[in-house]
Amino acid sequence: MAAEIVNPRSESTTDHTGHEGGAEPLDSFDPAFALHRGGKMAVQATVPVRDKDDLSLAYTPGVAKVCSAIAEQPELVHDYTWKSSVVAVVTDGTAVLGLGDIGPEASLPVMEGKAILFKQFGGVDAVPIALNCTDVDEIVETVVRLAPSFGGVNLEDISAPRCFEIERKLQDALDIPVFHDDQHGTAVVTLAALRNAARLSKRALGELRAVISGAGAAGVAIAKMLVEAGIGDVAVADRKGVVSADRDDLTPVKRELAGFTNKAGISGSLEAALAGADVFIGVSGGTVSEDAVASMADGAFVFAMANPNPEVHPEVAHKYAAVVATGRSDFPNQINNVLAFPGIFAGALQVRASRITEGMKLAAAEALAGVVGDDLAADYVIPSPFDERVAPAVTAAVAAAARAEGVARR
Amino acid sequence: MAAEIVNPRSESTTDHTGHEGGAEPLDSFDPAFALHRGGKMAVQATVPVRDKDDLSLAYTPGVAKVCSAIAEQPELVHDYTWKSSVVAVVTDGTAVLGLGDIGPEASLPVMEGKAILFKQFGGVDAVPIALNCTDVDEIVETVVRLAPSFGGVNLEDISAPRCFEIERKLQDALDIPVFHDDQHGTAVVTLAALRNAARLSKRALGELRAVISGAGAAGVAIAKMLVEAGIGDVAVADRKGVVSADRDDLTPVKRELAGFTNKAGISGSLEAALAGADVFIGVSGGTVSEDAVASMADGAFVFAMANPNPEVHPEVAHKYAAVVATGRSDFPNQINNVLAFPGIFAGALQVRASRITEGMKLAAAEALAGVVGDDLAADYVIPSPFDERVAPAVTAAVAAAARAEGVARR
Repeated sequence: MAAEIVNPRSESTTDHTGHEGGAEPLDSFDPAFALHRGGKMAVQATVPVRDKDDLSLAYTPGVAKVCSAIAEQPELVHDYTWKSSVVAVVTDGTAVLGLGDIGPEASLPVMEGKAILFKQFGGVDAVPIALNCTDVDEIVETVVRLAPSFGGVNLEDISAPRCFEIERKLQDALDIPVFHDDQHGTAVVTLAALRNAARLSKRALGELRAVISGAGAAGVAIAKMLVEAGIGDVAVADRKGVVSADRDDLTPVKRELAGFTNKAGISGSLEAALAGADVFIGVSGGTVSEDAVASMADGAFVFAMANPNPEVHPEVAHKYAAVVATGRSDFPNQINNVLAFPGIFAGALQVRASRITEGMKLAAAEALAGVVGDDLAADYVIPSPFDERVAPAVTAAVAAAARAEGVARR
Repeated sequence: MAAEIVNPRSESTTDHTGHEGGAEPLDSFDPAFALHRGGKMAVQATVPVRDKDDLSLAYTPGVAKVCSAIAEQPELVHDYTWKSSVVAVVTDGTAVLGLGDIGPEASLPVMEGKAILFKQFGGVDAVPIALNCTDVDEIVETVVRLAPSFGGVNLEDISAPRCFEIERKLQDALDIPVFHDDQHGTAVVTLAALRNAARLSKRALGELRAVISGAGAAGVAIAKMLVEAGIGDVAVADRKGVVSADRDDLTPVKRELAGFTNKAGISGSLEAALAGADVFIGVSGGTVSEDAVASMADGAFVFAMANPNPEVHPEVAHKYAAVVATGRSDFPNQINNVLAFPGIFAGALQVRASRITEGMKLAAAEALAGVVGDDLAADYVIPSPFDERVAPAVTAAVAAAARAEGVARR
C-alpha cells in the first residue's frame, strides 16, 4: 500500500482537497511530474452559490421544478443540465500511447490531457472515465448505463480489434455520438493533409495509390476514410505484409478490410507494395527503409506518423517525396488529432447529433484542409494545432453536415 | 423526438458548445429555469495548454513518463492525476428530493447542484453520474468498473432499501470512500444539532429518549448514529407505527433496526411513542399533531426536518419545545447536509482514506457542533451553511479520525 512510500512532506498540505503532498517519483525533477502534481483539471460552478437565495435556486427547493420539467419533457435535459456540453472520455487503458496495456489508473494522465484539450480547443467539457474491465460487452454495458449523464462518448486508447466492436455496439445502443478518436480523429486529420498535398500537386485523390503501414485502429479507419473520400487505391499492411483476400490468417476486421482495399491485388511485404505507390501512411511504429521510399512514384507523399520515431526520418523522406508529414510537433505538417476531435464533438453537440456519420467526418476533413487556404505549401498542408481558425471551422462544418445527414436534433 | 419541440431561436447559438437554445419549458420565466440554462457546472484545465511546449508536457510526449511511473507505482495515481480530488456523485434517480423515481436524466439538476456544493463548500471536484439501471448488482458492478477514475463515491437519491445494500457492497468492493449522503450526511448534521441542544439544556445524550419518524435512508442512519453516540434510547416509526421486535411485517433492514433500538419496548403509533419523549426527529414527510408534541417531556427538542412542509410547524413546536430545528432555510437551526458532506469528503480525500468509518462521522458531527461554540442558543444549535469555519473544521476532524482509525493512507 501507499503507506510504504509516504513522504513526510505530505503532512504539510496547503489545502483540504488532497492536491498536495504524497509519494515522490524517482525523477521528481522532471518538469512533466511537476506539472502533473494534483492533476490537470478541476470542476467549476458556472452559477453563483454565495448565499441562501443562490442555494434555493441552484439547489433545493428551486431545482425541483427543473427536475420535474425534465421528467415531463425528457428533451429538456439538454437545455437545463450540462449534458449537452459534456463528453465522457472512456478508456480501459489497454492501448495507451506507445505504452500499451498499462491499465486504467496509469492511463488517467492521458485521459485528463484529452479532457483539457477538449476544453481548450473546442469549449467542450470532458470527464475521464477509466474502466477496470476489458471485456467488450462489459465495457459496452457500463458505458450504456452511465450515458444519461453525458452528451457524447469519446473512446480512447482501447486496443484493436475490441475497439471496433465496442464502438459499433455502443453507437447502436445510444442516441448520443460515440467516437473512437484513435480511429476517426487520426483518419480525419490524415485525409485533410492528403487533400491538401493532392491540391498542391494538382492531382485528384482518384489518381493516387496509397499504402498504409499498420492495420490497427488508426490504419483501418484511415483506409475506410480514404476509400469514402475516393482514393484511387489503398493497401494496408500489417506485420505479415499486405492485407489481401488470399491470406488465410486474417481477423474478421482485416478480412473486411481486404474486401474494399487493395484493388491492385498486391500481396507480399509492405516495402514491395511501396514500389510505385503515391502515398505512404505510417501508423505502425515500425520502420521503412530508404530504398523502399526511393522506390515510390515521383512526387510521392510520405506521412510517417509513428511517435516518437517516424517510420522514416523526415530528412530521408524529403530526398524522394514532394510532401512529408509526421506526428511530431518539431517537424512541419504535424498530423495531430487535436485538430479534429474538439471541433467534431463541438459541432455534434451543438446540433445534438445522435451520431457522428461518415459525412460529418468527411466534412471535418474538408474544413480542416480548407483552413490552409492560399498559404498551401509543401511544408504547410495542415494547420498548426494552435491555429484558432481550426475548431470553429470544423465545428461549423460538422454541425452543417449533421443537419444535412438528418442526424441533428436541432 | 426533440425535433417536435425545437424552438426557432435555437438556431442563434452564441458559442459552439451547445450551451444555448433549444426547447422551452412552460414556465420559462421562472428564475430557476433561467439559472439552469446550459447547466450549472463546467470543467477547467488547471495547467496551461497555450503552446507547443505546454502541450508536450501536459500531453504527448511528456505525459508518457507520468503514465509509466503510475504503471510501476500505482499509488502515484493519487499524486499525479485529479483522482484524489474528484468524487463521483452517483444516482439512479429513484428517490430524488420529494419527487421520487423520476429517472436519471431528470435527476441531473440535483446531481449538478450537489457537485457544485462539493466544490464551493469543500474544494472537492465532483462529477454527476446518473445511471439508467436500478438493479442493486448492476449499480454496484457499474460503479466498481468506473471507480479507477475517482477518489470517492457519493451515493445520492437512491431509494431504500436498495441504498443500504448498494452502499455496503460497494464499500466492500472498493478501497475508496463510499458514502450515501441521504443517510449519513443527514445523520451527522442531526447528531451535531442534538449535541448542541443537549449542551444548551445541560443534559447528556444518555439521558435522552428520541423518537424518529421515518424508517427510510435518513431515519435508519440517524438511529444508528444516535446509538453509536450514546443516546439513552431511540425508537423509529414507519407508516405502521414504531418498529419493534414483535412486528411480523418488518423488512430485513427494519428487523435489524428493531434489534438495537427501542430498548423501552414501545409498540403502537408514532404519536403514542412521543408521550414523554425528549427528542422528536422527523424525516418522514408526514405530520405530527400539536397534541402529540404537547405530550413530550418538558424541555423537548423537536427537529421537524421534512421539506418543504415540516412535520409540525415550528411556531407550534415552539409552544412546547426548548429547541426547534427544521430542514428549511427560512427558519433558525436548518439541518442541511451541505454542513457535512463537503468537509467529510475533503477530509477523507486529504488523507486518502479507504472508507468513511463510524468514528469519522462522529468526529464530523462533533466538529460541526463545535463551530457553534459559545454562541450556543436555542435558535443557534447548528451553524449556517455559509459559515466559513464549517468545512475546515469538519475536514480536519475527519482527517484526524481517519488516521486514528487506521484507514488513512497518508
